[in-house]
Amino acid sequence: MILGNDPILLTPGPLTTSPATREAMLRDWGSWDAAFNRITQSLCTDLVGIVHGDDHYVCVPLQGSGTFAVEAALGTLVPRDGCVLVPNNGAYCARIVRILQRLRIDCVELPLREDEPVTAGALEQAFVREPRITHVAQVHLETSAGLLNPLDEIAALCKRHGKSLIVDAMSSFGALPIDLRAGGIDALVSASGKCLEGVPGMGFVIVKRSVLDASAGRSPSLALDLYDQYAYMKKTTQWRFTPPTHVVAALRCALDRFAAEGGQRARGARYARNCAALIDGMQALGFRTFLRADVQAPVIVTFHAPSDPKWNFADFFAAVRDAGYVLYPGKLTQVETFRVGCIGAIDANEMHNAVAAIGRTLERLNLRVQ
Amino acid sequence: MILGNDPILLTPGPLTTSPATREAMLRDWGSWDAAFNRITQSLCTDLVGIVHGDDHYVCVPLQGSGTFAVEAALGTLVPRDGCVLVPNNGAYCARIVRILQRLRIDCVELPLREDEPVTAGALEQAFVREPRITHVAQVHLETSAGLLNPLDEIAALCKRHGKSLIVDAMSSFGALPIDLRAGGIDALVSASGKCLEGVPGMGFVIVKRSVLDASAGRSPSLALDLYDQYAYMKKTTQWRFTPPTHVVAALRCALDRFAAEGGQRARGARYARNCAALIDGMQALGFRTFLRADVQAPVIVTFHAPSDPKWNFADFFAAVRDAGYVLYPGKLTQVETFRVGCIGAIDANEMHNAVAAIGRTLERLNLRVQ
Repeated sequence: MILGNDPILLTPGPLTTSPATREAMLRDWGSWDAAFNRITQSLCTDLVGIVHGDDHYVCVPLQGSGTFAVEAALGTLVPRDGCVLVPNNGAYCARIVRILQRLRIDCVELPLREDEPVTAGALEQAFVREPRITHVAQVHLETSAGLLNPLDEIAALCKRHGKSLIVDAMSSFGALPIDLRAGGIDALVSASGKCLEGVPGMGFVIVKRSVLDASAGRSPSLALDLYDQYAYMKKTTQWRFTPPTHVVAALRCALDRFAAEGGQRARGARYARNCAALIDGMQALGFRTFLRADVQAPVIVTFHAPSDPKWNFADFFAAVRDAGYVLYPGKLTQVETFRVGCIGAIDANEMHNAVAAIGRTLERLNLRVQ
Repeated sequence: MILGNDPILLTPGPLTTSPATREAMLRDWGSWDAAFNRITQSLCTDLVGIVHGDDHYVCVPLQGSGTFAVEAALGTLVPRDGCVLVPNNGAYCARIVRILQRLRIDCVELPLREDEPVTAGALEQAFVREPRITHVAQVHLETSAGLLNPLDEIAALCKRHGKSLIVDAMSSFGALPIDLRAGGIDALVSASGKCLEGVPGMGFVIVKRSVLDASAGRSPSLALDLYDQYAYMKKTTQWRFTPPTHVVAALRCALDRFAAEGGQRARGARYARNCAALIDGMQALGFRTFLRADVQAPVIVTFHAPSDPKWNFADFFAAVRDAGYVLYPGKLTQVETFRVGCIGAIDANEMHNAVAAIGRTLERLNLRVQ
């Protein structure tokens, strides 16, 4: 029996969207319909605007999850004789390495701890050590721990060294400031169902037009050929293959709400308040964050699991879900943790309620935190 | 100003879905949530059941449009030293050829006219002529013209000759009878937003387990690796990368409606009634179908464009849309045509109304059909 509200998703996407965004999916759209294609075009314009891209940048939407867009960007934009440096401080960095291996693109991994942001110095040393590096694939916000990497410094360094920078901004786009005007970023990848608060099903790549134009015919995949998707859309205004029409319509609504809220600055500020409410409340329950405060992004927070020998994430997850909140498992390799997202159409009040629900669950399961 | 109902989509997908199916998207689901993953599993079970697959077949869902699933099937299931025969009677067959070229898989094209189904004889000749052929990639229902290819005969022939058959059943799955029990089909690809009447955003491949198990590590793409998707889902019950949760929930509802209607037989019968009503009505207006009746599938109908020199598809499309119906452009290379779909959550009454709207539009635009 379902009583009351659906559970709130405290997850890094899919997340809790606004009712209006979901209601935008109550219409069917034809993919040849000019009104639908104007929606796609307005989305692309707005997405470039959020990161202050000028006429030198275009946005190419792609069907599928964000990982599909990451693979499309790498497979289309990196020449087969290129070499990609991947600073690795988490699972999403490791996924980029796996994608490059599949694409048979040479890659240099820069191993880091999961709580350790990459530094400009470490990148520079890698450039000196491995002069064959042509590209850097950088995860902006590593969702594995919730770790923020210093994008501005990395972009400035890549610009200085003439390396092409491709940024996985999956969990940061819309929430954290990204400014293409400073230069140094060739491509930026994100998706509909993260901090823009749309529903999942569509990724996008914001890419320098000159870089994309030089990529014609390079992709080893037809479905994931970003250039082909762009060229077809430019010519016809339509998506190359059937678009996820309802997901696109939901993102249009979500972007209207994003603008009405006050754009990235306001969205980021709300998430920061959510994050502070979450961390304060959880610390009062005895939980410790995995990351230091200065590298913790206000998107998803990793907590050390309770030391109680009775601890079992699946049981805890189920009990907290019954109390109305969906948590997320940890994704770290060494330490037992769990994660709580603070993004989506929720505010600090919801975070207070979530913490209260977690507190009641600890009591109910008779779990000692420390 | 919007008055009355949204236009009805007479297109081969996205199509008009039922209000209940769209309303299933009003909830957010977490991708780690057991309830959501049970939905995915039930979908897979039901989809295999629709084509009478037994325990030797599994269903692997994939994010993205149907083409993504076609590329995933070819890239995962065909060994790099395989050779694929592609009988080509339309744009979707040609797309398979393009995918194989990108994947650098050897391919033999069997060119056919756009109104000419492949025959077992022609296939057999190709097998004799080109003994290196290991696979056949067959489009069941070529949406370019609406042409039906004789799948049962093709499957029987492939079985007899020991060729592995991969079927693009995008526009036929759920509407036309497909029976895996007869043997000969190794994989069958379709998508959420076609005759199952879900919304677009998810494809799936129903594949012989032994064929899939032999494909580990073969895909040149991570995102489109069907084996990896299957193995991860089998181990965890979860999708490998963020699933299009709302699209999945809508497909669950659409499949419940499919079963309640009476399954493939009833769905196919309704579409056949829609198709007959459409063709009868259009012929009364003076239109001629491009295909002979015996090769016309009851899914989408290609009509010759009016001979009137004033004819312009974009104007006609816009005027008919204003009258409440969304048509589809032709996709044939030689002849000027347009298409009208007869699938989706619509019945023969809707087709009569559509024909009446087309008739009024002809008068309004003062267009002579012949």
